[in-house]
Amino acid sequence: MAICHHHHPTFLTHHPFQPTATTLSHLHLHIRLPSSFRCNLSVTSPPKLEPEPVYTSVKSFAPATVANLGPGFDFLGCAVDGIGDFVTLKVDPQTPPGEISISDITGTGNSAKKLSKNPNWNCAGIAAISVMKMLNIRSVGLSLELEKGLPLGSGLGSSAASAAAAAVAVNELFGGKLPESELVLAGLESEAKVSGYHADNIAPAIMGGFVLVRSYDPLELISLRFPSDKNLCFVLVNPEFEAPTKKMRAALPTEISMSQHIWNSSQAGALVAAVLQGDLVGLGKALSSDKIVEPKRAPLIPGMEEVKRAALEAGAFGCTISGAGPTAVAIVDDEEKGRAIGEKMVEAFMAGGNLKAQAMVKKLDRVGARLVSSSSR
Amino acid sequence: MAICHHHHPTFLTHHPFQPTATTLSHLHLHIRLPSSFRCNLSVTSPPKLEPEPVYTSVKSFAPATVANLGPGFDFLGCAVDGIGDFVTLKVDPQTPPGEISISDITGTGNSAKKLSKNPNWNCAGIAAISVMKMLNIRSVGLSLELEKGLPLGSGLGSSAASAAAAAVAVNELFGGKLPESELVLAGLESEAKVSGYHADNIAPAIMGGFVLVRSYDPLELISLRFPSDKNLCFVLVNPEFEAPTKKMRAALPTEISMSQHIWNSSQAGALVAAVLQGDLVGLGKALSSDKIVEPKRAPLIPGMEEVKRAALEAGAFGCTISGAGPTAVAIVDDEEKGRAIGEKMVEAFMAGGNLKAQAMVKKLDRVGARLVSSSSR
Repeated sequence: MAICHHHHPTFLTHHPFQPTATTLSHLHLHIRLPSSFRCNLSVTSPPKLEPEPVYTSVKSFAPATVANLGPGFDFLGCAVDGIGDFVTLKVDPQTPPGEISISDITGTGNSAKKLSKNPNWNCAGIAAISVMKMLNIRSVGLSLELEKGLPLGSGLGSSAASAAAAAVAVNELFGGKLPESELVLAGLESEAKVSGYHADNIAPAIMGGFVLVRSYDPLELISLRFPSDKNLCFVLVNPEFEAPTKKMRAALPTEISMSQHIWNSSQAGALVAAVLQGDLVGLGKALSSDKIVEPKRAPLIPGMEEVKRAALEAGAFGCTISGAGPTAVAIVDDEEKGRAIGEKMVEAFMAGGNLKAQAMVKKLDRVGARLVSSSSR
Repeated sequence: MAICHHHHPTFLTHHPFQPTATTLSHLHLHIRLPSSFRCNLSVTSPPKLEPEPVYTSVKSFAPATVANLGPGFDFLGCAVDGIGDFVTLKVDPQTPPGEISISDITGTGNSAKKLSKNPNWNCAGIAAISVMKMLNIRSVGLSLELEKGLPLGSGLGSSAASAAAAAVAVNELFGGKLPESELVLAGLESEAKVSGYHADNIAPAIMGGFVLVRSYDPLELISLRFPSDKNLCFVLVNPEFEAPTKKMRAALPTEISMSQHIWNSSQAGALVAAVLQGDLVGLGKALSSDKIVEPKRAPLIPGMEEVKRAALEAGAFGCTISGAGPTAVAIVDDEEKGRAIGEKMVEAFMAGGNLKAQAMVKKLDRVGARLVSSSSR
């Protein structure tokens, strides 16, 4: 069945995805062509068909994500299992056809209170609306309930998890007709409005594993498969500290020396190689090796430098800031070891930054956002 | 058998490879520990043993190399089969014990005339002397004959090929006791004196395939294995033009913007992924994607921009400058196709730069420098 749509105008304005024959022929193999791309090539557009809901209700989950990954600043991210956001989506006769309402937001900490229930101002809502438009939903109203498992502003891809869970929920409710690449575009629209136009959280939140964002125009993503026979655990240590987002952004250097550029690029290459080769030692080293962003940002998070040192001394393969912080992320090959390292990192946040912190050990999520349950009445 | 030595003093001055327990524990897995590193750790050094020659004469080959590879500037290189330098090395009673003499230099073009026969000023000689010191050769004199298959200053790793062939020849003559990593160090010493301290030609010339230079202190190299079931051909088009080395170096930007850095880093990551995944389309795109170095250097090589365009239009997956030029390198999956593309590139050098040029199509060399024959009298 052919599905065709025009992109949301706001989206088009920011990033005109108007592929020509040339750009299409250069699209990366790892991305399935979104149906909208194909539509632009056909001489006569097929009529827009509206799919029927195949469930009355679905529940989806999307994982936390660690973006940046040291030298992978702004183009590499990965998904972390066992922590994330849930979305419950229902066909709702009370909601006007073609629209969505947010019925409830629950969750840990103060996430729930801080988020808007206006779907146009909520990351889950924006992504859901975007997918509804892609699918051309006009006859059914939906209600969405968001269950936050992730704290806001922690550097764990909280907004991306909400957007990913919502995008997958809408798509699955209507039979899962859109490919992952379209869902990433929907999530990216949400990220652009809420936390900036970057795909390094939303792409792994939807696709799972490690994802390299190769380009935005057109969007090209490369899945980096970590070998399935290897164990990879993340020690995530989240201090009670609100990272000053503007300061974190302002701390970035505008100009970089050639030698720093060569160093960081080679480490980015080494990081990609380590992921694909399942080389945890190499991965850890690469994670720890950023000479451009981390040295500027770490001093803005009290205790971060001590935390990194403590993690490495305790046997972590590598450690850096998760996203824009304040969470610190270290990697190990074993959960038990991870817990011991986490304790040392928590102590270091207190000793070095006078901050309380919580540690958790999570595995690599290889699946990404997914349906967890569904009902047909 | 334990072999121990102290590094050549000149080398030590430039790059003090003095590993501690810490640096050793962080050495990359892909590199076998050079024996000299181990020696420094032992409390009492074993007596230096001098190996006996196992042949009276050996002949070795080392391949051409393509360094830089677009966004892999200064840290990525690969070896190209079927073109390179040969070294014939003989036990020579006429040469004082522990010394080496260069008996002859032959080869295509004017390479032979331009190179010094003083082993201290010849890339093959310097590498050979370095390996002799590593092996502690004091009782045998050697004579070396260099057969240049590569033109000088073409951007195909001519000096590295000579050094690699010489290093392997000396090592093999005495039973092949040194690991590849030591031979790379010997070759690096030669490169440092002759063409600058960089390992992105010498490492693939010795190791074969694609090699990522992760760090210099300590030297860490990552072999990137291109899948054996995939075909990768290089179209190498060498114009009759002497690339102005100083100008090429001076053209490099000293400061790079954050957005350019992120772009090139992500392309470097994509390039590494494409090599390991055997994705020729992705590899070609990455090769063509450099926004930092190539845009500055291409205008200094008459016709280069036209050559790149011609290669891509003729169906090459990607095209860039090989090393510091003037050779242009394009990649394809088929020799036949490669020859057709090469013709177009030759035409473009003439049309765009008024330069005569020669094209050749070569496969990826997966082996690196090697023995081709040996005799025991």
